[in-house]
Amino acid sequence: MPSPAPVTGPVVGVIGGGQLARMMGPAATELGIELRVLAEAPDSCAVPAAASHEVGDYKDLATLLSFADGVDVITFDHEHVPNEHLEALLTAGVAVEPRPTALVHAQDKIVMRRAVEKLGLPNPRWAAVKSVEDLVAFAEGRWPVVLKTPRGGYDGKGVLVVPSESEARNGTAAAWFAESGFEHLLAEEAVPFTRELSALVARTPTGEVRSWPVVESIQVDGVCDEVLAPAPGLDPEVEQAAESAARTLATELGVTGVVAVELFDVPGRGFLVNELAMRPHNSGHWSMDGAVTGQFEQHLRAVLDLPLGDTGLLGTATVMKNVLGGENTDLFSGFTRVMSSVPEAKVHLYGKGVRPGRKVGHVNVTAPAGAPAPETNTGQSGQDSADQRMSALRDRAREAAALLRDGA
Amino acid sequence: MPSPAPVTGPVVGVIGGGQLARMMGPAATELGIELRVLAEAPDSCAVPAAASHEVGDYKDLATLLSFADGVDVITFDHEHVPNEHLEALLTAGVAVEPRPTALVHAQDKIVMRRAVEKLGLPNPRWAAVKSVEDLVAFAEGRWPVVLKTPRGGYDGKGVLVVPSESEARNGTAAAWFAESGFEHLLAEEAVPFTRELSALVARTPTGEVRSWPVVESIQVDGVCDEVLAPAPGLDPEVEQAAESAARTLATELGVTGVVAVELFDVPGRGFLVNELAMRPHNSGHWSMDGAVTGQFEQHLRAVLDLPLGDTGLLGTATVMKNVLGGENTDLFSGFTRVMSSVPEAKVHLYGKGVRPGRKVGHVNVTAPAGAPAPETNTGQSGQDSADQRMSALRDRAREAAALLRDGA
Repeated sequence: MPSPAPVTGPVVGVIGGGQLARMMGPAATELGIELRVLAEAPDSCAVPAAASHEVGDYKDLATLLSFADGVDVITFDHEHVPNEHLEALLTAGVAVEPRPTALVHAQDKIVMRRAVEKLGLPNPRWAAVKSVEDLVAFAEGRWPVVLKTPRGGYDGKGVLVVPSESEARNGTAAAWFAESGFEHLLAEEAVPFTRELSALVARTPTGEVRSWPVVESIQVDGVCDEVLAPAPGLDPEVEQAAESAARTLATELGVTGVVAVELFDVPGRGFLVNELAMRPHNSGHWSMDGAVTGQFEQHLRAVLDLPLGDTGLLGTATVMKNVLGGENTDLFSGFTRVMSSVPEAKVHLYGKGVRPGRKVGHVNVTAPAGAPAPETNTGQSGQDSADQRMSALRDRAREAAALLRDGA
Repeated sequence: MPSPAPVTGPVVGVIGGGQLARMMGPAATELGIELRVLAEAPDSCAVPAAASHEVGDYKDLATLLSFADGVDVITFDHEHVPNEHLEALLTAGVAVEPRPTALVHAQDKIVMRRAVEKLGLPNPRWAAVKSVEDLVAFAEGRWPVVLKTPRGGYDGKGVLVVPSESEARNGTAAAWFAESGFEHLLAEEAVPFTRELSALVARTPTGEVRSWPVVESIQVDGVCDEVLAPAPGLDPEVEQAAESAARTLATELGVTGVVAVELFDVPGRGFLVNELAMRPHNSGHWSMDGAVTGQFEQHLRAVLDLPLGDTGLLGTATVMKNVLGGENTDLFSGFTRVMSSVPEAKVHLYGKGVRPGRKVGHVNVTAPAGAPAPETNTGQSGQDSADQRMSALRDRAREAAALLRDGA
């Protein structure tokens, strides 16, 4: 008997062929969804993970229109597609999620600050400034202040800490005003935060929102290095307020798909909003192995306007550790050592060439349900025991990531 | 700065493009391994999940040799490649895992019975029989007996329950002896089992073995329908003996990759070996969402001779329920209902055309670590509470699978 024709499911088109598109591949395969990628090059790392792909320039509208043909919804690996092109796709009847009216809040930090303020959510003190004089006026004599380009910054780029008025008048800040090409730059107080948090939620076009537990995100040199899920020792009131803020932002800005709200944890002031990302985010990679529904599956469900999956933890805690490129260019040379030393590590490699500091993979380590808590001394509190468990997970995740980075 | 060339990892070649090959795709993507499939047709269901593929006939040696070029190891979606071709691949220097000397025990039930006996593991009473007279002699007056073709049977095919001597002499059994073309058929006692179990392990060429917890496998009309992990209420001694038997078989038969040892649970006799499968197996699909390392990742690690991953449970229990084709041919039409009704269900669709009774997908539902046990009455034992939890998981998995099967 000949087999009946394969069932064809919805087609999700992703603009950009980086690791975020790549990691949507497994989730799409499991659900039977077709993932189609518009890649920068034939060897973009998402290509082998996608059911189909085209190579083309995301800045070219004709390319985008052609790519959108036969796709049920367009979504993104990155936030760099010109918004006028996205508007043109919408006009042509293409579903684009998230929509450019939402996306602008992840693209332009001044637009984002205004929106956060309007929603009554906690911003740092901020101002849009046009000149060194504006910046000095904003500082009110309290230095340092932070100067940001409204667009184009990521992983610590586009951010300048200005230590003093004389540096503002004579240093890089003055050059930024002269040469950046932006009408306004964003000035912010230097927030006295103790750590960074991330509140991750997903929202569908019809308005369903689900949140994952708030996590702690540890940055090194402005780049995400490690994520602890859930954020250790977080005041339940702060957790609830942060989650609620992320839900409000997702709903009121009309975000669809996954949105990461990066937060500063400021003792005595609760949290302040740092910035927004409208796509699966590094601070959510832990969910691939630590939650019932990971962020990549949830993003696909959300942009297709399907009901969202359960976001509960699978184990009791998960640590995500990024693998940043080092001297070693063959990540596979460390496989035997990492797999024998840390058999519980979930290894994720992105298939990208290694360059020092480049994000080339990550590992997740989860404390499973049935695992006994680490040995505790008599009289230790539950929090001490949770801290010990988190500390043990971090050691394992760091060991695994270092073995991958350094190779055999 | 131009990006450095992508890092290329090991290449695993899978012969066969069915759902088992397909489900290796996500695991390969996460590890950065290249999965290359030899598919029966361009629309075989593994094709969109694999990094690369060729279309060709696995019964043709030239096709196999060409496919093996540039592949680090050959493994399988099914057990139907002629063993002489596999020997020829080995002679040509190609790594083939599992090797044909092991594989024959999953292909030929008489060879398997002899090996189980030689290893001192518990077989049902059995004999290789050439004629109706042999069968009648084997029965010793105790009917029914079970007659099996040594090769080619699966999902209940190739198995005949012979109820009486007169049926043996005049019914289908007599026709099998006359027409089956096998020199011997396999006669087995009709085992008075209460349920079926499956002991799943993986083994590497250098001899590392890891086992998952023994599961209960529920068959309907000879086809796997539901799997309960771990097997409820299993006597710890039986569990340990079953796991140990699976390890012994894997080691002594020189199996590599995943091997499923299907067992009969027989009150008062412990367990008896039913049959072996040397590849990821339906009774291990639960591990994709319920164990730290799922069977597809473990199979890839094993055939590449990489250290094996942790096989511990992520939650406290997982139920796998198969989605068998029904009247509805559009499985996606049920997505909204299944995802809203059972948000904790992990949906796996195989991208295959629907035909009544065909395996087209499965769902997994896991009881997470942090979930409270279901409400219990005063005085209930832990086992009652575990039974209630398993029963609740089964209800959820069945609901999800039915919604997918029946559609909107």
